[in-house]
Amino acid sequence: MNLIKKLVEGNKRACARLISIIENESTGYLDLLKEVHKNTKGAYVIGITGPPGAGKSTLTDKLAKKLREKNKKIGIIAIDPTSPFTKGAILGDRIRMSDLNLDPDVFIRSMGTRGYLGGLSKATYGAIKVMDAYGCDYIFVETVGVGQSEVDIVKTADTTVMVMVPGLGDDIQAIKAGVMEIGDVFIINKSDKDGAKRTLIEIEMMLDFKKDWEFRPLVSMAISSEGKGIDEVLENIIKHKAYQEKSGKLTEKILQRNKSEIKEIIHRKIENKIQNIESEKEIEDMIMKTLSREFDPYTVSENILKKIIKD
Amino acid sequence: MNLIKKLVEGNKRACARLISIIENESTGYLDLLKEVHKNTKGAYVIGITGPPGAGKSTLTDKLAKKLREKNKKIGIIAIDPTSPFTKGAILGDRIRMSDLNLDPDVFIRSMGTRGYLGGLSKATYGAIKVMDAYGCDYIFVETVGVGQSEVDIVKTADTTVMVMVPGLGDDIQAIKAGVMEIGDVFIINKSDKDGAKRTLIEIEMMLDFKKDWEFRPLVSMAISSEGKGIDEVLENIIKHKAYQEKSGKLTEKILQRNKSEIKEIIHRKIENKIQNIESEKEIEDMIMKTLSREFDPYTVSENILKKIIKD
Repeated sequence: MNLIKKLVEGNKRACARLISIIENESTGYLDLLKEVHKNTKGAYVIGITGPPGAGKSTLTDKLAKKLREKNKKIGIIAIDPTSPFTKGAILGDRIRMSDLNLDPDVFIRSMGTRGYLGGLSKATYGAIKVMDAYGCDYIFVETVGVGQSEVDIVKTADTTVMVMVPGLGDDIQAIKAGVMEIGDVFIINKSDKDGAKRTLIEIEMMLDFKKDWEFRPLVSMAISSEGKGIDEVLENIIKHKAYQEKSGKLTEKILQRNKSEIKEIIHRKIENKIQNIESEKEIEDMIMKTLSREFDPYTVSENILKKIIKD
Repeated sequence: MNLIKKLVEGNKRACARLISIIENESTGYLDLLKEVHKNTKGAYVIGITGPPGAGKSTLTDKLAKKLREKNKKIGIIAIDPTSPFTKGAILGDRIRMSDLNLDPDVFIRSMGTRGYLGGLSKATYGAIKVMDAYGCDYIFVETVGVGQSEVDIVKTADTTVMVMVPGLGDDIQAIKAGVMEIGDVFIINKSDKDGAKRTLIEIEMMLDFKKDWEFRPLVSMAISSEGKGIDEVLENIIKHKAYQEKSGKLTEKILQRNKSEIKEIIHRKIENKIQNIESEKEIEDMIMKTLSREFDPYTVSENILKKIIKD
């Protein structure tokens, strides 16, 4: 386990290689993950989410820089929607986009959302573990888009930061209604734009609507591109972190993350089994015959299940 | 199978009830789905996707109205991100938002993206089948957000319509790069906004970059809220439909949809199994001990898998 030793010693290339091994499910990756898990120290995971154009990457970079000033080691995972055709990541240049990547104590990784399961990349949990064992104090998980990935990130992150912007159009009401329950810390970014104050008031009002908060989300304004308001965002994250630690919620979150990871691994194994069975002649014929309605997807499922599952 | 008979006769309440039964996985829902599948006629599925604020619902409504003028029967499924906490749908009022719902030949349904798997609601495939058997000629599947749900919708829809808007901010380049391969028909909506022409040119240029299109996506401008440009959008959809039918791609799409549905059902069954096993004392203890690193998620997964899978 030379690679694990190097990882724990803080070797950046070992970190990169291990994440690739996990992403590609190379032989023995689960055994490597077991060793990685043993060497985790408990990095704090911060999810950054919000609609396209909200400035999530810029905010993440600025927050990371603030934490570097405090001598913290930082990991950044940028979840990148994968093209269903080329199977490649779409953004890809998140790393090149950031000057932070030159800092030896910052590790940045773009990951595609490949495969069948969920909005997060299938190796996100693993990458978090690797960066944790690598020695990161804080790990940012940055998502593109809204929807399922937001829901997934809330399960993964210790603190979820919702980045909003003024004037996103008609859907904004819906987004706001949806994210109220997801965010721990809210930011109205690009707050020099028209309607920022109104967006702030609307968010505060919606948060006030719920009376029984255990931790009422904190809201602030920022202009990330100019570095304005970043201190307050970081303070709010730290306040939420303190609450989580004190209340025991942090342990719950970590447990939840482990449970999600367990499920993910199981579904991934099942996925591989399904793929093998689907290409069996008998099943392949059945699937073809769903077109003529001689068979249906439900009967085929039952047949595949019989081959996979113990009863 | 009285309910199925009513469905096929075009009873709106039977249609609603059947979708609820599938959503709730009520007893016998798979047997009902088998009957539904036998009664499908081959409705054409149109996916509508794009970033928040792009005006997807308005566009869908206008397209649906145009098709009603041609006496087509319409189904609309609005995929709605589900709150991970309340488990309720977030938008919910998609139905109330549309005057189309008064039309007896339009069936609208909001569905939450609950559960573990993918950006689409777990009953989306089933709902499509039910609306098909109900007699819908066209079924619109409308997603909120970008990311995984976009990727899922392209697997589900016969034609995918990408709704873009001018001036979405920095992420727009990334979104554009990502959706080039997903959309069959592109719309620059709200084309009276600044930068519409530029967005159009950029999209055309990116599409031209790929030389080996079998069907080069069609692009047009629209102002959905004013009903402008809707005819052209519909024409483009119909052109893509004609290409799909002629080339045999449509059959491939339907087969792909059936395969996705098969997988979804299998994963759902496995999910239930995992939940049962997770609450077994022995496994529960192991999961708790991932916190102290005495166990790890990978060893727990293997133990659960041993209980589920034949080897």
